Amino acid sequence: MTSDKVMMMSNNCHGWAARDDSGLLSPYEFERRSVGGNDVSVKITHCGVCYADVAYTRNKRKNTVYPVVPRHEIVGIIQELGDEVSKFKIGDHVGVGPFVDSCRECVHCDVGHEEHCSKATVTINGTCKDGTLSKGGYSSFIVVHDRIFSKFCCDLSLKAFVVSYLALNKYHPAKWSIPDKYPLALAAPLLCAGVTVYNPMIHHKINQPGKSLGVVGLGGLGHMAVKFGKAFGLNVTVFSISISKKDDALNMLKADKFVLSSDKEQMAALAHSLDFIVDAASGDHSFNLYMSLLKPEGVLALVGVPSEKIELSPLSLLMGARTISGSAVGGTKRTQEMIEFCAKHEIYPKIEVIPIQYANKALDRLEKGDVKYRFVIDIENSLE
Amino acid sequence: MTSDKVMMMSNNCHGWAARDDSGLLSPYEFERRSVGGNDVSVKITHCGVCYADVAYTRNKRKNTVYPVVPRHEIVGIIQELGDEVSKFKIGDHVGVGPFVDSCRECVHCDVGHEEHCSKATVTINGTCKDGTLSKGGYSSFIVVHDRIFSKFCCDLSLKAFVVSYLALNKYHPAKWSIPDKYPLALAAPLLCAGVTVYNPMIHHKINQPGKSLGVVGLGGLGHMAVKFGKAFGLNVTVFSISISKKDDALNMLKADKFVLSSDKEQMAALAHSLDFIVDAASGDHSFNLYMSLLKPEGVLALVGVPSEKIELSPLSLLMGARTISGSAVGGTKRTQEMIEFCAKHEIYPKIEVIPIQYANKALDRLEKGDVKYRFVIDIENSLE
Repeated sequence: MTSDKVMMMSNNCHGWAARDDSGLLSPYEFERRSVGGNDVSVKITHCGVCYADVAYTRNKRKNTVYPVVPRHEIVGIIQELGDEVSKFKIGDHVGVGPFVDSCRECVHCDVGHEEHCSKATVTINGTCKDGTLSKGGYSSFIVVHDRIFSKFCCDLSLKAFVVSYLALNKYHPAKWSIPDKYPLALAAPLLCAGVTVYNPMIHHKINQPGKSLGVVGLGGLGHMAVKFGKAFGLNVTVFSISISKKDDALNMLKADKFVLSSDKEQMAALAHSLDFIVDAASGDHSFNLYMSLLKPEGVLALVGVPSEKIELSPLSLLMGARTISGSAVGGTKRTQEMIEFCAKHEIYPKIEVIPIQYANKALDRLEKGDVKYRFVIDIENSLE
Repeated sequence: MTSDKVMMMSNNCHGWAARDDSGLLSPYEFERRSVGGNDVSVKITHCGVCYADVAYTRNKRKNTVYPVVPRHEIVGIIQELGDEVSKFKIGDHVGVGPFVDSCRECVHCDVGHEEHCSKATVTINGTCKDGTLSKGGYSSFIVVHDRIFSKFCCDLSLKAFVVSYLALNKYHPAKWSIPDKYPLALAAPLLCAGVTVYNPMIHHKINQPGKSLGVVGLGGLGHMAVKFGKAFGLNVTVFSISISKKDDALNMLKADKFVLSSDKEQMAALAHSLDFIVDAASGDHSFNLYMSLLKPEGVLALVGVPSEKIELSPLSLLMGARTISGSAVGGTKRTQEMIEFCAKHEIYPKIEVIPIQYANKALDRLEKGDVKYRFVIDIENSLE
């Protein structure tokens, strides 16, 4: 009883957690560490929701440790700073992505690609340096380590980093004429969905005006790929299994073309016509078919998780020297670039704002693909 | 009879052909077109042999038109020129690769990547512009169209082109101090095996000194990948299913390491250790296994034809943002670069020179993988 009482007393954070693989989320009190010298404490205002939350809460990957507090698309406002933090001030708008720490010294961390660091700590169910399990953004606040990437400072007066910890309105302030206008609710999905798509588009040079892009699957990732594609000046064709996406693709997202992927005639007519494909589909689909739509030396960037297995004919790659490449999330470098790009080009995800009390229903809907195009939880106004 | 007689009279070229899908090669007389204004007639001195010849002669792809005269690694000496050819002279050493023509005007032809031209005419069993079937290098001479790629001329005084038609000793003469010393027999395999490997290595920047390269499969392609890799300053590990390749890998080809691919312990120890892999294996093998050896953002360049199907776990691509990319042969640009590179660095394929009379036995041995590392037929001294 005494031990339980001590535990109870130290619980300083309100959140919602799943306790078992039913995945049912309900209120949960737990302890966040106190703010150390290099730490920043962030009052969470909004938090995105995606299929990873279904996987974590319902133990789809068989590695969930309960209770689990989901989500890594976290945005909020700084409420407390460690003594050694000089690059932030209380009140700054900041964000936390898929990682809350990394080794900070490997070749990947050195260049801001912490997503490749073998010691990176994921924001949910990861093991923190103090041995505790990391807990995500379905909660009232989060404490994260700050650090500076001097290599990226260049002419930037401020460049903040706590693994995917980003000062939304402090990065490159000279160029950020509208950062305070970028709503935090809309910024949340950038930190995972946004950078997951943006990262490979930059890596594979899928940003050359006039080139052609196919986007397979119009969900949380796919709709960002269309937005980035149009902003890069690409000619964008959306492929979907559902005709219900046509209107959004053409009218809301301004795609140049919509193709129902079951339309064999239209698909055949597009053979060898695309420079690039961003494949964000989660369902099973034929990779040989999409590879056949690429021009010689074309690239298919896989960002969705399609199934247990990708099957390809060797000739799909050999003839025309075609490439298939995967990518997941991104590190501070690309995330920072992306936030700047989104602010400059007024690119905003299409979201449905929900209260935390709707989270269970949201995960049910998400599992059925019933969201246009990202749920964002209004933590600030609904979490008690 | 009269018609037959006319046919007989016009047969000006001696060769060896297969008549049916037994694939048995035997002497065959046929007609090459007379030399037109832009044509060059080449007396063939040597011709490479590879698995494609087995496939063509034995109808493995079910599309062979008989009689078929195989092979596209053709080198020889110019014996006759059309009136409009000014970039060559009689006696020049030249070569013909996998194509004898292309549309000459598409975006791919424009940049010397004729391997991607949809109208390219392959050297064997292709349909020439005059409607005849192309016939390869198991023959006494070949007639090919000449043309100039002015875009590539730059500071080069001579830049000859007839689709993969290359002036071995006329390209960039200022830098070619030893072209006449580059034996024609050794030059033959460069025109297919060499460029098939060199092309993706340049495309994917597998030429950065100090980076690490795995070469899977030590045959005609693989041994060239090791040679190029070492010339580029890479740390090269050879993976083979056969311990019999170890000595050649380490001592003849100067690879840094040899790994028997069935050695699970050694394979596991190499996880995430390689920047690049050139996969030249023809047998079935696990792609997930080799992808797991790549560092984040690593690239596997597939140049072999492994099986009916490539199977990959999505996570093999997604985690670590890894890439698999195919490539087959190459166009004039990369072939020309490669010949220059080989001459400069004294890179020579390891060949076994054979007479044309040994061709059937050679194809039998080739089907069993019994060659180190490329057969080259001494056409000049054995074809009667």
